[in-house]
Amino acid sequence: MKKSKERQEQGLFVTEGRKMFNEALEMGIVEKAFLSENYLRECGEVSCPYETVSNEVFNKISETVTPQGVLALVKIPGAMASERVKEAKSLVLLENLQDPGNLGTIIRTAEAAGIDGIVLSRNCVDPYNPKVVRSTMGALFRMPVLYTDDLTLFVKELNKNGFNTLATHLSATKPYYEADYKGKTAILIGNEGNGLSDEITDLAREKVIIPMSGKVESLNASVAAALMMYEVKRNK
Amino acid sequence: MKKSKERQEQGLFVTEGRKMFNEALEMGIVEKAFLSENYLRECGEVSCPYETVSNEVFNKISETVTPQGVLALVKIPGAMASERVKEAKSLVLLENLQDPGNLGTIIRTAEAAGIDGIVLSRNCVDPYNPKVVRSTMGALFRMPVLYTDDLTLFVKELNKNGFNTLATHLSATKPYYEADYKGKTAILIGNEGNGLSDEITDLAREKVIIPMSGKVESLNASVAAALMMYEVKRNK
Repeated sequence: MKKSKERQEQGLFVTEGRKMFNEALEMGIVEKAFLSENYLRECGEVSCPYETVSNEVFNKISETVTPQGVLALVKIPGAMASERVKEAKSLVLLENLQDPGNLGTIIRTAEAAGIDGIVLSRNCVDPYNPKVVRSTMGALFRMPVLYTDDLTLFVKELNKNGFNTLATHLSATKPYYEADYKGKTAILIGNEGNGLSDEITDLAREKVIIPMSGKVESLNASVAAALMMYEVKRNK
Repeated sequence: MKKSKERQEQGLFVTEGRKMFNEALEMGIVEKAFLSENYLRECGEVSCPYETVSNEVFNKISETVTPQGVLALVKIPGAMASERVKEAKSLVLLENLQDPGNLGTIIRTAEAAGIDGIVLSRNCVDPYNPKVVRSTMGALFRMPVLYTDDLTLFVKELNKNGFNTLATHLSATKPYYEADYKGKTAILIGNEGNGLSDEITDLAREKVIIPMSGKVESLNASVAAALMMYEVKRNK
């Protein structure tokens, strides 16, 4: 389960910690849990298939600094995500995003901003990478996250379906807060080093800029995404 | 230089990479550089004291995955920072912020948002920690960053001096974008796990909330800071 390919093939990912486990349990998406003896002593039985492991073994398999005695295999919500993205009124599209912390933060902020779904180009970091899972703080269970094999086509379809597709670009003159967020909105965010590709930028209906003082050349991708996502929330 | 205490005592911190080095050179704040043979061959002489090291040794001392052949000891801008914070019209105050990536992102976003300075409580992560330095993308050279031994007293002084001190709190009802950012403004941001302490929250002139949909309990500290900092920029 440490490899992206294995996770995709089996439709499962790993989550650690009690809070995340309880949320996954509530949603009925736990395939199997691995519980330490300490966990069972403190928290009692659980309502999903599980295996008991000794505290020593648990601390060895844990990826966290302070293991909480529970590690779970959770089902990747594939079909549900696809349905919900189809009905979405607000989306965030990520092109070639590489940093797990950025993706996790974007998923968490997206839920807070009331965004309906997230769509990733194939070359993005895997959303079920343990670092991403951790930094979503549970939002990954609830937020539909979908891959697209062809982001260009996806953006074209959104344009056809009445979405305002929004790209940030350094050459744009309209500030992001003057864009139109009232109808269906898709926010396009690019790679950490290079931003959005020209191809995707050109397809966007509105090009906007996040004004920057000083000598800063760009904002962190999760910050740029947050500023735009909260415009969606403000305009609701 | 790997320890915070040593950095503070010597008034120096370490920076890696060509872009950061060139900026530090331009500002005349490089104490000494360590250059690989490759770097010297490609880039020629530099206008600061330096030592040449073999490519092999350089790759060993480098903390980055793809070393660029330059590592520099840079002066911590102490007195300058203190002067500029005194004259600041907009500040970000951080209480017990722990994550180096968050601090780096806040410093970078602060420069972009035109914030005049950053003030840290003593228990914050060290801004000259290499991970923070990297994630500021150069903004650390330009943005005044100051420690305060007594954040409570600092906030009281700001209140006396006509600052609108702004704290986010889950019990607040006023959304952050309806706060008053027109005059002197200080944004208070708390610890990743626990938020602001009650003591600091109580001192704030305005308590605001960043509205959140779904089941998200809080936003990432650097995202919360970014949303408020960009309100300062918008209101200019």
